[in-house]
Amino acid sequence: MYRPQIKVVDCTIRDGGLANKSQFDLETVREVYRAACAAGVDYVELGYRNSKKMFDPSEFGAWRFCDEEQLRRVVEGVDPRGTKVALMQDAHKAEAEDVLPRSESVASMIRIATYVRDVDKAIRLANNATDKGYECTLNIMAISHEGAPFLDEALQQIEEETKAQAVYVVDSFGALYSETVHYLVEKFQMYLKTKEVGVHFHNNQQLAFANTIEGIIKGANYLDGTLYGLGRAAGNCPTELLLGFLKNPKFDILPLLEAIGKVIIPLRGQIAWGYHIPYMLTGILDKHPEAAMSWMGTPKEHDYVEFYKKISDPPQ
Amino acid sequence: MYRPQIKVVDCTIRDGGLANKSQFDLETVREVYRAACAAGVDYVELGYRNSKKMFDPSEFGAWRFCDEEQLRRVVEGVDPRGTKVALMQDAHKAEAEDVLPRSESVASMIRIATYVRDVDKAIRLANNATDKGYECTLNIMAISHEGAPFLDEALQQIEEETKAQAVYVVDSFGALYSETVHYLVEKFQMYLKTKEVGVHFHNNQQLAFANTIEGIIKGANYLDGTLYGLGRAAGNCPTELLLGFLKNPKFDILPLLEAIGKVIIPLRGQIAWGYHIPYMLTGILDKHPEAAMSWMGTPKEHDYVEFYKKISDPPQ
Repeated sequence: MYRPQIKVVDCTIRDGGLANKSQFDLETVREVYRAACAAGVDYVELGYRNSKKMFDPSEFGAWRFCDEEQLRRVVEGVDPRGTKVALMQDAHKAEAEDVLPRSESVASMIRIATYVRDVDKAIRLANNATDKGYECTLNIMAISHEGAPFLDEALQQIEEETKAQAVYVVDSFGALYSETVHYLVEKFQMYLKTKEVGVHFHNNQQLAFANTIEGIIKGANYLDGTLYGLGRAAGNCPTELLLGFLKNPKFDILPLLEAIGKVIIPLRGQIAWGYHIPYMLTGILDKHPEAAMSWMGTPKEHDYVEFYKKISDPPQ
Repeated sequence: MYRPQIKVVDCTIRDGGLANKSQFDLETVREVYRAACAAGVDYVELGYRNSKKMFDPSEFGAWRFCDEEQLRRVVEGVDPRGTKVALMQDAHKAEAEDVLPRSESVASMIRIATYVRDVDKAIRLANNATDKGYECTLNIMAISHEGAPFLDEALQQIEEETKAQAVYVVDSFGALYSETVHYLVEKFQMYLKTKEVGVHFHNNQQLAFANTIEGIIKGANYLDGTLYGLGRAAGNCPTELLLGFLKNPKFDILPLLEAIGKVIIPLRGQIAWGYHIPYMLTGILDKHPEAAMSWMGTPKEHDYVEFYKKISDPPQ
């Protein structure tokens, strides 16, 4: 028996864009969009609506900004069948003015990614989005580094001051185990009486899908995934695994499998995501994957002991 | 706080041998042995003690049989530091006479792999092992295809008729989710009043490590892993992830990382293990990975929709 409240958000292009500066070609994005619509995925996140003052458009691709005319090229001629387009704004790298009224946009939902310290900026952007007619979520990044009292205060503030429909636990560093997932989903639920809880996990320890299941078991209803786990470093919860697990008959895994074969597998030559020991180690040590990303591809790539020592011995 | 009863079994060479007909060179096996000893892993399984009548020694490598003189070449000059050698016998492909008295063997433990239908053969081999002075476990394969009443009767029989110290839940097809793991570990515990429960999971759905954690949470104390998840098809729970999770200070992850860099990473050219959509699909459909293994490497390898149709439509 399935839980109809569950919403699946495929964020292949948005999250995967962290691995290639959002430089996907249009046909790849169209194929992911087509697949998400045909598979019955609830939301497909096509990129960021971040500020061109913060990201240089000569360096970052179109999906870092998602201009409306670009989005129209993606959706043109595709039957959405109920799948809605989402965009993300980073609380500290986006501007309210860049969001048009909902009626002029291809997007239905704006997701605000934030650190706890930026929660006031995030709330302002969230209210901008809901005031302009969008659905909205708040996604609290680096959750494994956040604790009481600031996280608790931020959740209370979000509950009281926004109309966001869901607030996400985002395990940016791939550091959480099932026990921590249970603890965090319960904590979020305690403060967010009028909102759903979402989960977004990274795969450094091969736990992104498993932790998503544990989130579901505790009542999280907004679930993020990417095709074949595409994403920065170790990547994400694979959307196809989620659809294989969920029982709602509206979902169809086959369009996702087709898109993976057509446009995701070919990306393996350009982006090295998945399970690698350096990413595993930053996950276990609860650190940003940056050091691991720099280590990968160097002549010392497989000298894991040296990498471990480098990242586990803090500077004196 | 850690649970001292937990035993980690690294079965890289034994389980990995299913992917290459047990054709590892001696230096690779010595390096895995050295690493397991230095890391504080409790048991290291160096291969099968299967019958040369069942497996042709001109086709299968030394680690399918593990002659004692071969094992001595592995352990020679290495300080075991408490790590014991295990061997596996397949209930339907091994013979009692091939097991020497414990005092004449390098091995301390014999693990008997069995299907429920072969439980009487397995019990005979288990009693042969314990009578000859070995520690012993029984590993019940293809557990996702087994149910009441036969599984229950087999567990009762093992409890009453053997001195095996642990009985394993073996998810041969990578089909289990955390709920099923909880259910099976509890069922095993209900029948096995005098024995520990072990868990051995495959990674078709990226759940091998997560399910092992769920086994631990329910009280399973024998935990299998392989370095970097090496194994047939999608592979196994990575031993290094297990050691990263477990808190017993006797464990040291660094020797495992070193061995992975030295001898496991180079195997990637010969053995294609890990997350691939065909293996994922046999996992979701709870089938043997054989069809997926045949599909991999063909020109249609990435035509996942055709593969899905092929394996999900049973012959009329």
